[in-house]
Amino acid sequence: MMNRKLRMGMIGGGKGAFIGAIHRIAATMDGAIELVCGALSANPDNARESGRALFLPQSRTYTSYEEMLEKESTLPPQERMDFVSIVTPNFAHLAPALLALEKGFHVVIEKPMTLTLDEARQLRQKVEETGLLLLLTHTYAGYPMVKQARQMVKDGALGNIRKVLVEYTQGWLSSLSEKEGNAQAAWRTDPQRSGKSGCMGDIGTHAAHLAEYISGLQIEQVCAQLNTVVEGRALDDDGHVLLRFSQGASGMLTASQVMAGEENNLRIRVYGEKGGLEWAQQEPNTLLLKWQDQPAQVLRTGGAGLSSYATHNTRTPAGHPEGYIEAFANLYRNFGMALAARLDGTTPPAEALDFPSVQDGVRGMAFIETVVASSASAEKWTDFLVNPN
Amino acid sequence: MMNRKLRMGMIGGGKGAFIGAIHRIAATMDGAIELVCGALSANPDNARESGRALFLPQSRTYTSYEEMLEKESTLPPQERMDFVSIVTPNFAHLAPALLALEKGFHVVIEKPMTLTLDEARQLRQKVEETGLLLLLTHTYAGYPMVKQARQMVKDGALGNIRKVLVEYTQGWLSSLSEKEGNAQAAWRTDPQRSGKSGCMGDIGTHAAHLAEYISGLQIEQVCAQLNTVVEGRALDDDGHVLLRFSQGASGMLTASQVMAGEENNLRIRVYGEKGGLEWAQQEPNTLLLKWQDQPAQVLRTGGAGLSSYATHNTRTPAGHPEGYIEAFANLYRNFGMALAARLDGTTPPAEALDFPSVQDGVRGMAFIETVVASSASAEKWTDFLVNPN
Amino acid sequence: MMNRKLRMGMIGGGKGAFIGAIHRIAATMDGAIELVCGALSANPDNARESGRALFLPQSRTYTSYEEMLEKESTLPPQERMDFVSIVTPNFAHLAPALLALEKGFHVVIEKPMTLTLDEARQLRQKVEETGLLLLLTHTYAGYPMVKQARQMVKDGALGNIRKVLVEYTQGWLSSLSEKEGNAQAAWRTDPQRSGKSGCMGDIGTHAAHLAEYISGLQIEQVCAQLNTVVEGRALDDDGHVLLRFSQGASGMLTASQVMAGEENNLRIRVYGEKGGLEWAQQEPNTLLLKWQDQPAQVLRTGGAGLSSYATHNTRTPAGHPEGYIEAFANLYRNFGMALAARLDGTTPPAEALDFPSVQDGVRGMAFIETVVASSASAEKWTDFLVNPN
Amino acid sequence: MMNRKLRMGMIGGGKGAFIGAIHRIAATMDGAIELVCGALSANPDNARESGRALFLPQSRTYTSYEEMLEKESTLPPQERMDFVSIVTPNFAHLAPALLALEKGFHVVIEKPMTLTLDEARQLRQKVEETGLLLLLTHTYAGYPMVKQARQMVKDGALGNIRKVLVEYTQGWLSSLSEKEGNAQAAWRTDPQRSGKSGCMGDIGTHAAHLAEYISGLQIEQVCAQLNTVVEGRALDDDGHVLLRFSQGASGMLTASQVMAGEENNLRIRVYGEKGGLEWAQQEPNTLLLKWQDQPAQVLRTGGAGLSSYATHNTRTPAGHPEGYIEAFANLYRNFGMALAARLDGTTPPAEALDFPSVQDGVRGMAFIETVVASSASAEKWTDFLVNPN
Repeated sequence: MMNRKLRMGMIGGGKGAFIGAIHRIAATMDGAIELVCGALSANPDNARESGRALFLPQSRTYTSYEEMLEKESTLPPQERMDFVSIVTPNFAHLAPALLALEKGFHVVIEKPMTLTLDEARQLRQKVEETGLLLLLTHTYAGYPMVKQARQMVKDGALGNIRKVLVEYTQGWLSSLSEKEGNAQAAWRTDPQRSGKSGCMGDIGTHAAHLAEYISGLQIEQVCAQLNTVVEGRALDDDGHVLLRFSQGASGMLTASQVMAGEENNLRIRVYGEKGGLEWAQQEPNTLLLKWQDQPAQVLRTGGAGLSSYATHNTRTPAGHPEGYIEAFANLYRNFGMALAARLDGTTPPAEALDFPSVQDGVRGMAFIETVVASSASAEKWTDFLVNPN
Repeated sequence: MMNRKLRMGMIGGGKGAFIGAIHRIAATMDGAIELVCGALSANPDNARESGRALFLPQSRTYTSYEEMLEKESTLPPQERMDFVSIVTPNFAHLAPALLALEKGFHVVIEKPMTLTLDEARQLRQKVEETGLLLLLTHTYAGYPMVKQARQMVKDGALGNIRKVLVEYTQGWLSSLSEKEGNAQAAWRTDPQRSGKSGCMGDIGTHAAHLAEYISGLQIEQVCAQLNTVVEGRALDDDGHVLLRFSQGASGMLTASQVMAGEENNLRIRVYGEKGGLEWAQQEPNTLLLKWQDQPAQVLRTGGAGLSSYATHNTRTPAGHPEGYIEAFANLYRNFGMALAARLDGTTPPAEALDFPSVQDGVRGMAFIETVVASSASAEKWTDFLVNPN
Repeated sequence: MMNRKLRMGMIGGGKGAFIGAIHRIAATMDGAIELVCGALSANPDNARESGRALFLPQSRTYTSYEEMLEKESTLPPQERMDFVSIVTPNFAHLAPALLALEKGFHVVIEKPMTLTLDEARQLRQKVEETGLLLLLTHTYAGYPMVKQARQMVKDGALGNIRKVLVEYTQGWLSSLSEKEGNAQAAWRTDPQRSGKSGCMGDIGTHAAHLAEYISGLQIEQVCAQLNTVVEGRALDDDGHVLLRFSQGASGMLTASQVMAGEENNLRIRVYGEKGGLEWAQQEPNTLLLKWQDQPAQVLRTGGAGLSSYATHNTRTPAGHPEGYIEAFANLYRNFGMALAARLDGTTPPAEALDFPSVQDGVRGMAFIETVVASSASAEKWTDFLVNPN
Repeated sequence: MMNRKLRMGMIGGGKGAFIGAIHRIAATMDGAIELVCGALSANPDNARESGRALFLPQSRTYTSYEEMLEKESTLPPQERMDFVSIVTPNFAHLAPALLALEKGFHVVIEKPMTLTLDEARQLRQKVEETGLLLLLTHTYAGYPMVKQARQMVKDGALGNIRKVLVEYTQGWLSSLSEKEGNAQAAWRTDPQRSGKSGCMGDIGTHAAHLAEYISGLQIEQVCAQLNTVVEGRALDDDGHVLLRFSQGASGMLTASQVMAGEENNLRIRVYGEKGGLEWAQQEPNTLLLKWQDQPAQVLRTGGAGLSSYATHNTRTPAGHPEGYIEAFANLYRNFGMALAARLDGTTPPAEALDFPSVQDGVRGMAFIETVVASSASAEKWTDFLVNPN
């Protein structure tokens, strides 16, 4: 698939972290990316211990990202890392990303991209200046059936889009778990580390990205109501947003982390003049198409009737379910193919270029700040802060 | 089940009508209600022809509701109808209902109850004055699993209720079918016959009723956005409403008749501190319970672990699916049991008294007028027009 | 729909019976059949009490079927019942059916049709001699989506049929409930009242009928293994049957009443060269079509793309679920339309003639006797006892 | 997770192979196993090209398995491979496996384990002689919810097991694709390369293994009917098997590759006295529990109420679907943990020792030979060839 093996470094993701481990599996899944170094924790002992657990050489187990970026940049090109993956909490995204870009490293970064919209703009400017690649890990855009949905909308299969309904509901913050020793909960509900919004920042941004990604439309106005349902919590843990999209479409976004009993229930429906589509992350290999004048259809990962974008992002024959980790790996694989092609001076397939970028990151941060402003306003409608981007 | 057979008259529901036929099946299903007379159409020929098709005696096939109510009231008590079912379009609800009550007949009436909130209040006053029974046919409240859901919330199984999400989506008005000879579409999108709202009046009221019925809460504030998606239509065909309920719960209501490909997709989710429940009308015999700390459960019509309210409204053993018509029949059966008990001077079981009433009708009309006002307002929140009732 | 109202009598179905009540609802649902008399129980007190509860006139509440058939046959034609519905346990089917036919009454009869294959042949002969109509209530053949499945196979949509898999699983006999006061269990597990087989007779016959009805094929050979899983039971409560059909198709039938936790889980899959179809009684409004070379399709009761046979057997628009009782009512409605047309000397629509008949009853009894013989044999294959009919 | 990184070699799995790529992803997913060498094809050019594509050093890209096993065995212990993964077609399993064991390498091997039962016994003897580890890749035993099902049965949650129903249906051989250039079809339908059975060998063995794995019972007798549905095919492509298990349970196994429209539809149901469980590979993160006396429950990967065996085999929080590749990786991870512990002289957790072994391979080959013999027999029942094991 790729003519070279890419070398990845990682910032964050040490012992006890959740998403770092997923990044490592996803990146290395296809045998074309290799973890070569890490600054895995701000805590030097944790950093060293985590490096050992990952079989990293001691010499490339760094105790700060500054050290890593500095030292790696002095290694010979055929040895030093090609890109860095930043999997720290939100507040610790911008600085390492800027430095990495300055040092000439391509960047993979977790969402939401930064702590503020202003930071996002800074990062975008640096990416544009350096011309380097940035992958923003909006995982759900990596699923084959999401690719399929996007292509069908683009091809006009549904007619003009009228409605977009997206919801992302979880229950894991139904009680005040940030005060009960849950480290994930602690930083995600802390404005200092997470930013202006809790739930909308953490998962609302995924939902908003998916809505725009599949529909091909942009949110232009919102009417938001954010709630802090669990008493004592410092940020929103629930909210609803009425949406007005470009081209006259309307819709609705729900995000909540207090829907007790829900796991990771991201679900989207898009309706056009002729029919609608429905996709749910918890059964991701099915895309349901409902038609006004003919029987509904069930598209399946690896099955009949799929676009090249779906097929490109599929590893197994139909009926061998692909899941969250494969979707995540698709982001890395596409980013890797694009990067390898650039390094080789070749042209990657169009399908490989389809991954979330710094522009998506800016829109995500604008989404957060817009819904927070709207929620605080007595006016019904608030303009989206960054439009068209 | 009942010691007497009740006699029903019908206003509206002649040839070509949809809901009248459903009412007749539902009313007579359990063998305890009999259709004895009708003023089935405002068109005398249609009225007569419809009467013949239903095997009504010519003498009790009336050509106007005034004639029917007048003549029936002069028949001997053991012969004349006990109650009248009014299944005309919205604009033709109030007058026959008032007259029927004045003549001493109990009333069954389609939703939305009247054309305006003001009319609804008039009707409520008349019901209160006469002390007669009124059944408002919010069909979906008749499903066994809806009864079960309501009881579980009431019993505190979910803890305090935090969130209520309800949606009712259809696709049948995706094009301008009212101009293409669809009679159902014609009156439902006509402000003169339907009222201030199209979609919210027709199906939004069902959704709002179900939300309050299951949650036991009342809507206190709304933020509504109604849309007329299909160009040339005279009323809203789509909308979203943010909801604030009593006791601090919040939620969301979506109603649309332009979600192309949807059939009659009414779905509700209610979440409390401990878990959530989910019910969808298109698979009505399943009630899904999701718990924060234990495996989800699937309750089933006729199955294990059900309340007396669910059982009372069930006709067949588990696995013999009951549907829309049975739910409708439950409304009539409960109303019939309550009425027969009153006529017999006995006490009906509590389960039989659980049917939508004139109070629900007033709230339904208030819902319509509130969301129309909110949609026209630039303010985010609008108070519910009638609270507590 | 019908120009005359038909008059029904009932044998069996008194207080405490299950299926009699279903028959009454089903028969009268569409307003064209009326219960006019009954011999509702072999116990005279129960018969009288049951008649009162159903608001039957005392004069037509009979205490034996002989009395009823005798007296009704002397009433004037415009008054006496048109047909009789026999809902007694299996052992009490043949005698009243023969007598009814002799007296000139058409017959509706529960399945399995008789106690033995020999009895079934006698009944068939009498039907043929008298030329009267007989409806055998294989309920599941009344579902709209089953009609649709049958038509699609007939039209060759799947290509030549290769495989038929049918299963009917219940759990209600998981313990020895016939010894614990369950009256339904008591007669169904009693060879004297039920016949040579318990489970295969009670529900295996439904499964076998459905397999032949949808596939249009006939079972030619079986390899059966019947089990009595619950110790102390007098008949089989579980079994598997390998099937060889006409035209080279093969398949499998499972029937069990000891699959603990199952409700009434009848499910059939039929595969041809091009694709397969799948229908499950517990969600009866969906017919799933899986294709080898294109996306799967979901047909829905009342939805797009249906045959006249499905539409004819549907009462409500798509998304208003129809259930078991409506399927049952379809049998009666079709039988009623056929009977009314005969009485009127008119031609009924082809769709109305599609109901299970005495021939199906003979095949059902042959199925029972064949699988019992096969189960007792050490040979792998046993020929179907009656072929082609 | 592991204190050492294990070194894997691979035999087979070169360009164009399907399952080899899955093995590589699965083995390396958790960062504790590394592919260090390969004899990837019997064709030297393909072998070399495949090695390059996988970034293997030229020196360890071998052109025959004999060369690889010979050379690797002479490398220093800290460099040479620890185990070899054999992913060739069935006929080419035994020889490399025997040689690898003789050279002291642990073995991973695809199913069915060998070409004949006799070969399987030879391999078992060699494993027993050498004391080395062998993992047989019955993938489906690696799913968390399968582990859960097994544990619940073991813990008696369902009571004594009465029934086991398993089916594995595919449609990909619905036409004579082995004559149309499909390489997968070509070898799998070729007795020389595949063995005595096509469908039963390829997927029936998976189904049989799963049935025994979850139920904890052993098949003792079978009554099989194998079919060659597609004309011109050299082996069975479809079949049904009635099963008699130890401890009096009975059941049914269906395997087919001509159910047109099916993908990879492996599904199992196990019923005991108290309830039943149901698992379907195409939605593998759900385990449905049906109870006779209480509501059904839905267990979910990563969710509440799971055993240590399910949890041990899970990588992500509930609602982040895990799929086929993760299940496959669980086999490798457990094998790897067991192997690393042995090399380190430590004790692995019990959960890591739960992977399919050479004993399962012998039973799988016995299953094939038993059902082929039974299918050819006119007797109903045939004893399982190897019991107990």
